[in-house]
Amino acid sequence: MKKLINAPETVVADALRGMAATHPKLAVDAEAGIVLRAGGKVPGKVGILSGGGSGHEPLHAGFVGRGMLDAAVAGPVFTSPVPDRIGQATAAVDAGAGVLHIVKNYTGDILNFGMAAEDADDDGIKVETVVVDDDVAVARGEGAGRRGTGATLFVEKLAGALAETGAPLAEVAALARKVNERSRSFGVALSSCTTPANGAPNFALGPDEIEIGVGIHGEPGRYRGRLTTAAETTGIMLDAVLADLPEAAGDPVIVLVNGLGATPPVELYIVRGEVERVLAARGIQVARSLVGNYVTSLDMAGCTITVCRADEQMTELWDAPVHTPSLRWGA
Amino acid sequence: MKKLINAPETVVADALRGMAATHPKLAVDAEAGIVLRAGGKVPGKVGILSGGGSGHEPLHAGFVGRGMLDAAVAGPVFTSPVPDRIGQATAAVDAGAGVLHIVKNYTGDILNFGMAAEDADDDGIKVETVVVDDDVAVARGEGAGRRGTGATLFVEKLAGALAETGAPLAEVAALARKVNERSRSFGVALSSCTTPANGAPNFALGPDEIEIGVGIHGEPGRYRGRLTTAAETTGIMLDAVLADLPEAAGDPVIVLVNGLGATPPVELYIVRGEVERVLAARGIQVARSLVGNYVTSLDMAGCTITVCRADEQMTELWDAPVHTPSLRWGA
Repeated sequence: MKKLINAPETVVADALRGMAATHPKLAVDAEAGIVLRAGGKVPGKVGILSGGGSGHEPLHAGFVGRGMLDAAVAGPVFTSPVPDRIGQATAAVDAGAGVLHIVKNYTGDILNFGMAAEDADDDGIKVETVVVDDDVAVARGEGAGRRGTGATLFVEKLAGALAETGAPLAEVAALARKVNERSRSFGVALSSCTTPANGAPNFALGPDEIEIGVGIHGEPGRYRGRLTTAAETTGIMLDAVLADLPEAAGDPVIVLVNGLGATPPVELYIVRGEVERVLAARGIQVARSLVGNYVTSLDMAGCTITVCRADEQMTELWDAPVHTPSLRWGA
Repeated sequence: MKKLINAPETVVADALRGMAATHPKLAVDAEAGIVLRAGGKVPGKVGILSGGGSGHEPLHAGFVGRGMLDAAVAGPVFTSPVPDRIGQATAAVDAGAGVLHIVKNYTGDILNFGMAAEDADDDGIKVETVVVDDDVAVARGEGAGRRGTGATLFVEKLAGALAETGAPLAEVAALARKVNERSRSFGVALSSCTTPANGAPNFALGPDEIEIGVGIHGEPGRYRGRLTTAAETTGIMLDAVLADLPEAAGDPVIVLVNGLGATPPVELYIVRGEVERVLAARGIQVARSLVGNYVTSLDMAGCTITVCRADEQMTELWDAPVHTPSLRWGA
């Protein structure tokens, strides 16, 4: 295992200390794995909270700030945070208007966020939960259901922007669910990730093999294929995504071309160019797009593509100001 | 070679097409390798131009926009752009106040930018050149001199901000040289990069070996060492940087922890945390910092650290608004 780390057991706290040093507008409790906005609660605003296992940086802590999350709760690598920590962060961001939990669809997260939401309810804090399950590589109804991947960023951005306007919890939760329903993702890996605790790759790939339909925790893909061109690989990914995405005539899309951690910007931009070509040929207009490492899987090489069919409200919320370490625009 | 590309010979144009699709505020000529601001020349403003071989994305095209570059010229992978293209971009951004060329210190770039500057002069365009040579892994006076790496971002940001205020060319060039003189960098690699044309790594490293003092084109390091902890590795890098950086009593520093392409955010933030620890112990205050993939070396794993001793003017210019694809803040 070749990683710039100190020890497997201090990876998360060490990284959070680095985030704290870099971003003065975050309030970071590195040992507890809780990241809040430094300014404290925003009176009357719905609190937006997300979290999950670490190893997907900048998701979620890199998205804490005005216009997006109020809190991120970071568990150990690829392991859900415990309910107590989620509860602690929920209480910290409840300003009387309730809290939205944005939860990726994994068994541990569903369980732990569910328990935290119940406890919060006992304490008089209203919690709504949106489960993100956008990965079309998993069939509907299979096992624990579809995994949550790149659409999490869209849900966090758009729900965060709506909450900033003072919208009530029910409305913010409904928007978050709409964003998830209108988003689909698919990923390919050119290499496996290596977790610090295991020290060896989760799976082995031959020199010209890729894993197609891979998860963001080293879950193997739907099948294994040969690495050909970026054009062909992008075609496979978009075929899977678009086949599953309900038509919304005339609605443009927001696209995320997301690096899994070890794929450099030049390759991601090449994929982005192919996305443009494929979608244009299908008459789909890309209204907005984002290219970079946003939802990573430690040191995995490869990428995911997320497509979201955006209505007018969603495009406006996308354009709304956001001031976080890893997503930043507007006044 | 495992890369998301179409063919080695189309890597640069394909990536630039992806950038064009993603960033409507860029005017991209993908075939010529020229990226300008979509809005055209800014009357009376000094034009800020940089460029060089591709493979270091987002440097330089990702830094074109208000508050930073007016033009980036992208050569083939790890190969300087030809003088004609540099000249074409120089003419495109000269608004009567002259143009600053920001050139990383490599033989091909020095030669080609020099010829372009001479030609521009013949055409009545005033050009000043700043050569960036911040890599302390190369001894002063050795071979072609020190390589230009992470400090290029600092020079581009600060000179870009000063030019935006309407400052004259001589003043912008003097600031650019000051930033370079006050900046030092050092890098380590955990793996080599693989150029699309070669298809094989530039050097081979054992499972626990790292290359210390590596360049951003797969140039081997000063020596080879054993990978230990992030703390020890950071210590080695900062020792090299600080031993060479002139004291500037009381001046705080701006720090860049830069990923070389295949190192994920979680590891870069761990290094950032160690930087804070080492500098605090030496009584050096980090005024501002940046963590991410900014000056990459294709798919190399590893990182560089750049430290810049910033006076008050430099910190103010750092904070000035910047609106580019990969660096963005302020109104």
